[in-house]
Amino acid sequence: MDQKLSKVILLLSCPDRRGLVSHIAHFIFEQGGNILDLDEHVDTESGMFFIRVSWSMNGFWVSASELEDAFRPLAKDFQANWKIHFASKRPRVAVFVSKYEHCLQEILWRHKTGEFAVDIPLVISNHQDLEALVVQHSIPFHVYPITPENKMEQEQEELALLRENNIDTVVLARYMQVLSQQFVDAYPSRIINIHHSFLPAFTGGNPYRQAFHRGVKIIGATSHYVTEELDQGPIIEQDIIRISHRDTLKDLIRKGRDLERLVLIRAISSHIEHRVLVNGRKTIVFG
Amino acid sequence: MDQKLSKVILLLSCPDRRGLVSHIAHFIFEQGGNILDLDEHVDTESGMFFIRVSWSMNGFWVSASELEDAFRPLAKDFQANWKIHFASKRPRVAVFVSKYEHCLQEILWRHKTGEFAVDIPLVISNHQDLEALVVQHSIPFHVYPITPENKMEQEQEELALLRENNIDTVVLARYMQVLSQQFVDAYPSRIINIHHSFLPAFTGGNPYRQAFHRGVKIIGATSHYVTEELDQGPIIEQDIIRISHRDTLKDLIRKGRDLERLVLIRAISSHIEHRVLVNGRKTIVFG
Amino acid sequence: MDQKLSKVILLLSCPDRRGLVSHIAHFIFEQGGNILDLDEHVDTESGMFFIRVSWSMNGFWVSASELEDAFRPLAKDFQANWKIHFASKRPRVAVFVSKYEHCLQEILWRHKTGEFAVDIPLVISNHQDLEALVVQHSIPFHVYPITPENKMEQEQEELALLRENNIDTVVLARYMQVLSQQFVDAYPSRIINIHHSFLPAFTGGNPYRQAFHRGVKIIGATSHYVTEELDQGPIIEQDIIRISHRDTLKDLIRKGRDLERLVLIRAISSHIEHRVLVNGRKTIVFG
Amino acid sequence: MDQKLSKVILLLSCPDRRGLVSHIAHFIFEQGGNILDLDEHVDTESGMFFIRVSWSMNGFWVSASELEDAFRPLAKDFQANWKIHFASKRPRVAVFVSKYEHCLQEILWRHKTGEFAVDIPLVISNHQDLEALVVQHSIPFHVYPITPENKMEQEQEELALLRENNIDTVVLARYMQVLSQQFVDAYPSRIINIHHSFLPAFTGGNPYRQAFHRGVKIIGATSHYVTEELDQGPIIEQDIIRISHRDTLKDLIRKGRDLERLVLIRAISSHIEHRVLVNGRKTIVFG
Repeated sequence: MDQKLSKVILLLSCPDRRGLVSHIAHFIFEQGGNILDLDEHVDTESGMFFIRVSWSMNGFWVSASELEDAFRPLAKDFQANWKIHFASKRPRVAVFVSKYEHCLQEILWRHKTGEFAVDIPLVISNHQDLEALVVQHSIPFHVYPITPENKMEQEQEELALLRENNIDTVVLARYMQVLSQQFVDAYPSRIINIHHSFLPAFTGGNPYRQAFHRGVKIIGATSHYVTEELDQGPIIEQDIIRISHRDTLKDLIRKGRDLERLVLIRAISSHIEHRVLVNGRKTIVFG
Repeated sequence: MDQKLSKVILLLSCPDRRGLVSHIAHFIFEQGGNILDLDEHVDTESGMFFIRVSWSMNGFWVSASELEDAFRPLAKDFQANWKIHFASKRPRVAVFVSKYEHCLQEILWRHKTGEFAVDIPLVISNHQDLEALVVQHSIPFHVYPITPENKMEQEQEELALLRENNIDTVVLARYMQVLSQQFVDAYPSRIINIHHSFLPAFTGGNPYRQAFHRGVKIIGATSHYVTEELDQGPIIEQDIIRISHRDTLKDLIRKGRDLERLVLIRAISSHIEHRVLVNGRKTIVFG
Repeated sequence: MDQKLSKVILLLSCPDRRGLVSHIAHFIFEQGGNILDLDEHVDTESGMFFIRVSWSMNGFWVSASELEDAFRPLAKDFQANWKIHFASKRPRVAVFVSKYEHCLQEILWRHKTGEFAVDIPLVISNHQDLEALVVQHSIPFHVYPITPENKMEQEQEELALLRENNIDTVVLARYMQVLSQQFVDAYPSRIINIHHSFLPAFTGGNPYRQAFHRGVKIIGATSHYVTEELDQGPIIEQDIIRISHRDTLKDLIRKGRDLERLVLIRAISSHIEHRVLVNGRKTIVFG
Repeated sequence: MDQKLSKVILLLSCPDRRGLVSHIAHFIFEQGGNILDLDEHVDTESGMFFIRVSWSMNGFWVSASELEDAFRPLAKDFQANWKIHFASKRPRVAVFVSKYEHCLQEILWRHKTGEFAVDIPLVISNHQDLEALVVQHSIPFHVYPITPENKMEQEQEELALLRENNIDTVVLARYMQVLSQQFVDAYPSRIINIHHSFLPAFTGGNPYRQAFHRGVKIIGATSHYVTEELDQGPIIEQDIIRISHRDTLKDLIRKGRDLERLVLIRAISSHIEHRVLVNGRKTIVFG
């Protein structure tokens, strides 16, 4: 890879101890970097330390592999999970959809206007319906119909396609199939789903119908990383809107669409800007 | 009672049919009333009609019983559940508490400033802790310690006390005991509880702890009428606040207190202004 | 016109007096209508009464002109401003734009998905930029470049075009020209603008820049009817989002776009569903 | 003072340059501190760097003056404005009020419950009205009636009283007098006011009346540091609530009270936890 870098982002977690920020900041200083943003958090329950730090390398030229090699001893000493991202390298995102277009439309639009600095090399669906919309944006559209019988096989093909396209992140934009564990394991903390309720309320199917019958005064949407347990993954972003007795089930679905779009978009933004760290069942999202 | 009235409020529900608003409005016109506010709602699922209408009787003097007698034939024809309230008659509210003071404090304050136009003839608690606060407001404070053994008996005494004091509405201001069915049945749709979560998420005990461990990005509070099924009664009001990974469990509890206060206050306001109608498991809250 | 109607909406304002609701409800009952929704409001300062009532005519066939003729005597007696709308008649909306696409895109999308039950016979712009987007939706796109010299003339042509197309409502979707009084007078309370601030803060140009330099913690958007006084028309809808010191001016503009879209969409919805009544400098928006 | 410290907070601003975080973190490490929280921000417009860092000194005993002496050379090199706070030292707050009690009540309550870790050695008012409430909390209450003639003199006495009591921070809890420049200059960025509107909308007197007549759909409250220019100081916190045509001026005032309380409380919290830095006309509030 060895590209020349202007902006670098380090995400790191490790057991907390004295001097972590000092050592990391000193490393960056020695490399000739100027810190742009630094956020850290200590989870006092687990005793874990989490940091996101971004810096500019202006003037100082260093390759990606050199930077990683230079940092490795420190990371080893910290017993850290870590990753260095280069802002100049655009994340490669695959979007999965079924029949609802609102989330996909919003993603494609942000992509088109440049608000999302990602590449979207492909869209995958289990239905044909949204092909025209995708093709109109000059993005390849792949259909993999799913039945209980062919599911494992189809997923294998999908995974092969993702690998071929060097996909970093999978976005489920109202994709109406549950992914198998094999699929989830291939993209740990890298599959983002939007669930159309304020989780953990109304897990499973038809959350708007559940909300309608429970008579809640507020509906929500939740974007989370997908884990093998349905609707239980670490939550990245949630938001809500007020409803009233005047709202029919149809109104809930309509109002919810606006919410789903925004919540998913915000979760994707946090993810692709490398602002999310996973802490067990929870996330740390730096602002 | 037969007091002279200035402002009257009718709450009514019945099977929907043509002409309901017309007949009711005509009745008010004939009585010499001038409609101040009219809200109605048709639940198309159940085919039920709900209305709240308030009017002034300025100039026209009529007694409460005369008004009810006059309306009875119409209500019978509609097969309606209905109640006529007189704004000049202050609701009589009993507050139940345990050890947390924030909700009680807020209620007493609104009462003192006149924002709540209610009488609070007594506060009941299963603990002694909040006596000083209550007595300071010149309100009698009654302690009924509850054990599994004495619960039914103590509740009977509490109910007797409520009856003696002509209590209309019971407010559970973080009262940490589950009421028995006998108690709930004595005040149908007239016991207001505050639950410190966004129901139906995190029912039962320790909702903030549950929320903290689930890693939600938003916490809520819910005020609802108490039914025999715990945390399942019709929701009157809900609201939320955003939290982040920075918030400890203690922060959630602290931030939640502000939310509980406001949500409970809003629910009580809606109830005492006769703006809530129950529709099965749901409520209609007119604005 | 004389079409057969299923759902009818009456918007009416007049000096308040006893019996207004009763007379209106009785009129509807006599016409064979069944009231679906009724909202009313009395402005105690001005002594004015405002009502929106919708009813279904199922089974009873009556023409639009017959209905209006039947209501006229009552309205005259009330000294009312009034209008009867027929839900089956789709409002005809002209959208004005300049170079920003986000509001236009959102409108076209809601139109395409059927969420907006309106006809959009044309889009007018003072620039060529958004032609492709409009044409893609099979809507004619008209360009009228505006200079101080040709403004009155160009507006005359625009007005002629609007008349030809029987336009009811004009939506300024970030149209960057101030309309002359002659134009505004042609569509009183029927031109909807979106201003990218929480009015009355930051009137005039560059509101995000103003907000950025003032250091506010919240930015807003305001949708209002256009009057001859810039940014002073009756407000239909407002909303806000929180910002922080981290947000650059560019961030404000980006975040504001999402807000502008939603606020404008909600204002248009209220207007085309005939839920807005103007009360001097203010609006009544029934929920 | 030379007390032994457990938690230390540094607030610092200086021209941005490479290595600032590294040097500060290294200093803390050398002192034996363990960083608990670090937030920094670079204002790219002004080229200024802002940091808040808190650390624990567990095990390592150092006096306040030793710590300041040790840091001074670094700060001088950075050309920094800086202050080291010790969490164990409670800020000393004077509250100024007139006749409205809601903000004062909220402050006294948070103080009583321990949520505000401050000392409140005195309350000052230009009226007698709130004496009972203050005395009930065992806090001295001082009355300084203000007329145009005696204003300068009375303020001198107030300032003397503040000095005697070692007051750090002045909170204007709906104090209805404009402070003179001499007073403001004595507590730069240390006088916190609550203005009952969403500034910069509705500056000056009667903001609710202004809002009511403008017909806004949202009202706000703003807490800011007081500067010599009325309602123009750096904003610390703002929030809003929705209103509708149903709300009378009286409703706005009532709803606004809840907002004022919360916004002022949040601003005070940020200030006393040393999370606010002033950047010209703006603030940086670390989360």
